[in-house]
Amino acid sequence: MINQLVAKIQKLNAPVVVGLDPMLSYVPEHIVNKALEEHGETLEGAAEAIWQYNKEIVDHIYDLIPAVKPQVAMYEQFGVPGMVAYKKTVDYCKEKGLVVIGDVKRGDIGSTSAAYAVGHLGKVQVGSKKLAAFDEDFATVNPYLGSDGIDPFIKVCKEENKGIFILVKTSNPSSGEFQDQLINGRPLYELVAEKVAQWGEQHMGDSYSYVGCVIGATYPEMGKTLRKVMPKAYILVPGYGAQGGTADSLRPYFNEDGLGAIVNSSRGIIAAYKQEKYAKFGAEHFAEASRAAVEDMVADIRSIF
Amino acid sequence: MINQLVAKIQKLNAPVVVGLDPMLSYVPEHIVNKALEEHGETLEGAAEAIWQYNKEIVDHIYDLIPAVKPQVAMYEQFGVPGMVAYKKTVDYCKEKGLVVIGDVKRGDIGSTSAAYAVGHLGKVQVGSKKLAAFDEDFATVNPYLGSDGIDPFIKVCKEENKGIFILVKTSNPSSGEFQDQLINGRPLYELVAEKVAQWGEQHMGDSYSYVGCVIGATYPEMGKTLRKVMPKAYILVPGYGAQGGTADSLRPYFNEDGLGAIVNSSRGIIAAYKQEKYAKFGAEHFAEASRAAVEDMVADIRSIF
Repeated sequence: MINQLVAKIQKLNAPVVVGLDPMLSYVPEHIVNKALEEHGETLEGAAEAIWQYNKEIVDHIYDLIPAVKPQVAMYEQFGVPGMVAYKKTVDYCKEKGLVVIGDVKRGDIGSTSAAYAVGHLGKVQVGSKKLAAFDEDFATVNPYLGSDGIDPFIKVCKEENKGIFILVKTSNPSSGEFQDQLINGRPLYELVAEKVAQWGEQHMGDSYSYVGCVIGATYPEMGKTLRKVMPKAYILVPGYGAQGGTADSLRPYFNEDGLGAIVNSSRGIIAAYKQEKYAKFGAEHFAEASRAAVEDMVADIRSIF
Repeated sequence: MINQLVAKIQKLNAPVVVGLDPMLSYVPEHIVNKALEEHGETLEGAAEAIWQYNKEIVDHIYDLIPAVKPQVAMYEQFGVPGMVAYKKTVDYCKEKGLVVIGDVKRGDIGSTSAAYAVGHLGKVQVGSKKLAAFDEDFATVNPYLGSDGIDPFIKVCKEENKGIFILVKTSNPSSGEFQDQLINGRPLYELVAEKVAQWGEQHMGDSYSYVGCVIGATYPEMGKTLRKVMPKAYILVPGYGAQGGTADSLRPYFNEDGLGAIVNSSRGIIAAYKQEKYAKFGAEHFAEASRAAVEDMVADIRSIF
């Protein structure tokens, strides 16, 4: 799957992933109203609204980008019906040929971590059958519990040719409270990055590892250092656009081969119609606004090379 | 809810929580077979099996304990049908008067963390209505992303009188890879514990905070230190029984008032019938074995005072 992701990035010349993080407040009124008329003001109604919203956006952008990253929290908040919408979204994006990165940030230990790995990337044994549950291509994982949390994911990734992105340095202001703390003169996130490189050796693709990492777009200096610590890890970079990162600051996240990083934008794409720049499309044509925003983002990212 | 948890612990004289972490391999054959006959070898069949298993256990132990802790990974591995079983379990346990700690270990930032908080502890706005999704009483939370990940949970907890348990020091062998690293001579987990104490001040119950923490049962010395760092935080202690912790080692986790900690056992209770000690009950009477195991555990924990 990492080989497939790299090939798709190269083919489209677009190291870009769109975050499908549908807040109900992003969804245009005409979609929300229709869904709530059909299902009432219920969790099912909300879930139907975000699913229809996702579908229309995906239909308009799937040919421009290699991957999407649905943020499961935005579905989980609507309970079981929300998880139905999540699963529909994952399946639909895969049908459209997109690589799906489940932004689930799970992390636990032993058999519990194995259960998360199986549920999101693998197959669970039921009687004589092995069944896939959520079946994303990649998942994001939290490293706080150490190797006991990561190894079960790597085991499943090996069986299924799938991958993970491990949180190293997140893009939020308070990420430094723990991640930046110095250990023998080096920040914790660098230690995590070293482990990512070690874990990654256990499951290598052709040129990159199936074990990647997450580093926020707002730290170009850190990106430079961490790129060297983990030369074979794909870096998933959130924080472009809405969280303040710019294309200029992204160069250090890439290797000399122009690969090694994939930049995420969520709200900046899916709620593009709400920005002044794309307001001309109007709420009715929100998905066309998303397409225009993807085209602009891809051009912007290409400009750094 | 923290006041309610403390009151129930005192009333039952049982600082004990049972982890509802149903691996399919724990579920007796007669239950699995019935569920798979009805639903086929499907995710629905597996989910029905774990739900029936949970229900029978809860029916046999609900009067002995203040709380249960379903581990969501064990449900999530069965996809959407698994999440249906999770929700049924949460609702059923609440009907039985149990405090429900959702062991979800979620952690993200800003609006994403807010979505998790809303989905598990709060209410989500859909049209003119505010709807509860999973609706546990407490949730476990991962601290790696700092205050930006915790604050949205505290906000929802204040609105709903609910609480969280933040991972401080986990019970797994590799937890030291990051959690034990020294920062100015003190381990990272102690820094996290200090933050837990600070976060906890924002939302206090009568005698304890709505913000608790998780510390594995296998570190009595650490328990002693951390107890002092966070005198007002309830400590959720996994690792009793199956993971090797004993009652003797648990004393330091409690305050002088005999409160301040709640000890979890999962497999040791729900799969008790598989142990030699409780084998006489047989697979048919697995839930009676669980009851006997709870009685033994409660007596064991009481013996430390």
